[in-house]
Amino acid sequence: MALDEFSVIREYFQGRVSSNVLGVGDDAARLPMPPNTQLVVCKDLLIEGRHFFADVNPATLGHKALAVNLSDLAAMGAKPVGCLLGLGLRQAQPQWLAGFSQGLLGLAERWECPLLGGDTVRVQHEIVISVTALGVLPVGEPGLLRSNARPGDDIWVSGYLGAAHIALLGLQGESGVSQDRLESVRRALETPQPRLLLGQALLGVARAAIDISDGLLQDLGHILKASGCRARLHYADIPLDPGLKGLPPALCATAALTGGDVYELCFTADASRRSDIVRIGERLNIPVTRIGVMQAGDGLEIVDAQGAAMNVGHSGFDHFRDLDD
Amino acid sequence: MALDEFSVIREYFQGRVSSNVLGVGDDAARLPMPPNTQLVVCKDLLIEGRHFFADVNPATLGHKALAVNLSDLAAMGAKPVGCLLGLGLRQAQPQWLAGFSQGLLGLAERWECPLLGGDTVRVQHEIVISVTALGVLPVGEPGLLRSNARPGDDIWVSGYLGAAHIALLGLQGESGVSQDRLESVRRALETPQPRLLLGQALLGVARAAIDISDGLLQDLGHILKASGCRARLHYADIPLDPGLKGLPPALCATAALTGGDVYELCFTADASRRSDIVRIGERLNIPVTRIGVMQAGDGLEIVDAQGAAMNVGHSGFDHFRDLDD
Repeated sequence: MALDEFSVIREYFQGRVSSNVLGVGDDAARLPMPPNTQLVVCKDLLIEGRHFFADVNPATLGHKALAVNLSDLAAMGAKPVGCLLGLGLRQAQPQWLAGFSQGLLGLAERWECPLLGGDTVRVQHEIVISVTALGVLPVGEPGLLRSNARPGDDIWVSGYLGAAHIALLGLQGESGVSQDRLESVRRALETPQPRLLLGQALLGVARAAIDISDGLLQDLGHILKASGCRARLHYADIPLDPGLKGLPPALCATAALTGGDVYELCFTADASRRSDIVRIGERLNIPVTRIGVMQAGDGLEIVDAQGAAMNVGHSGFDHFRDLDD
Repeated sequence: MALDEFSVIREYFQGRVSSNVLGVGDDAARLPMPPNTQLVVCKDLLIEGRHFFADVNPATLGHKALAVNLSDLAAMGAKPVGCLLGLGLRQAQPQWLAGFSQGLLGLAERWECPLLGGDTVRVQHEIVISVTALGVLPVGEPGLLRSNARPGDDIWVSGYLGAAHIALLGLQGESGVSQDRLESVRRALETPQPRLLLGQALLGVARAAIDISDGLLQDLGHILKASGCRARLHYADIPLDPGLKGLPPALCATAALTGGDVYELCFTADASRRSDIVRIGERLNIPVTRIGVMQAGDGLEIVDAQGAAMNVGHSGFDHFRDLDD
């Protein structure tokens, strides 16, 4: 059975394209913009062997390829309106495509973020997945910018941290991660839920936000640099995932502080907004935890329950680290 | 010298990001939409070894990566408003990045299409370039759809055809393509100029349009299928590139009819619009040539100067052709 480029698109994606856009099939897709909005766009590239394992379940891969982009929209406080998919495959395997499209389109439907179009190509080596997500913000709303934090702001984080890092170790065969533990943490790695409702609810309440896909310390570092601030984090307040229970404390700290692939939001807000933020978390049923404070200056300090500075290792994940030319 | 992911982005792209958007550096970019417009989006994925040679000049590659997307906007009649870049590299080579960014950003400036953001990742094998282009159409304007052609419409094409195909043969070392000839045709392949002004001028004048990146016959075939029509082309009217002069007629026919990588527009329009279209071509200094007519039915016929049907080979380029699973 030979599948050409066009039948691949048609069979697995075109029938699911939203009917109020002109989708897969024309040179470009046309999307009416909701009134009084401005556009928000982001794009992530996922490469086999680097961002996902070759044998990953295609449905979880499809989910995740869109989820990581929706998470970027969430960190701006934007509401999704559509997405585009670029897919580079070695071959067109119906079973793989059925799973992948189900995972991606299922999440797209859940967030009313229709697939608008894209491009499929053949590759020799690694599978390539390129997703562009489009969202909207109300006119005049700057969004939750990295550069907007101020000294005195509380630092908050959503959800629980560390599970994705432990799941990655488990999938890599690390002996300290039992099969039971792997099962309890792998959902955080494989099917992360973008915090879109939280991001939208924080507009006008929080100041700066970022998703912590490269790890808490590195991504918080981006806020610090863009805002010209310093941070003091209280380690005892950092919400560890229940799936980490019983692991060595040093491993938990690494997982929670520097583990990447986390699609929770780290955000800052004036101390006067504490009760608002707690109420938003309760209303959305999303845990929100105050983990530190922004200060004047630069750098980042983590203190233990006694207020003593903790020493932490490298600050996160960098796709080009160690790359010499 | 080690370049990390973030310094790569900053050094070569961030300084050139438009100041009226929030670009590279936040999770997503925010773009105010011009009043009374609707969004048009498209996305193309280019893979080393498949869409470009490993030793291609990086500046022409940067140009082309954006040009092929702007050409898709042109085929809708849309005006560009911004673009996103996903770049997968084996290593961060300053010289390559300088050339690539110069080519891409030069074309972006030419068309007031600022780079809004994107993602850089490391790959093991083929270089991956993923560009998303964003454009706008006036509210209520459906754009130049593939599905809008009608029997009786004239079929038009912009520019001259065949040069890109001959350039590709020359770069592949085909003995019939001299170095002089290669120099006269390679610009069509390497630095195509998207027909944006033509596409915008054709709104309300033409009915259907497509860019012929997969070759005239295949792309016209998409219009035929989407519109439920048949086409009759007059081969003698097809505008061959002057760089093809002296080549065997059969090779010229293959190059002009089925050669891909052509960023001219093929469009249809009511016969009453002939003089409007000629005037648009004159005003923009873009050749426009009437090459055939749409008819009721299906299929595509090419006739010679005597009205006899010509036999043509395969209909174009398909990235997944011959792909069995």
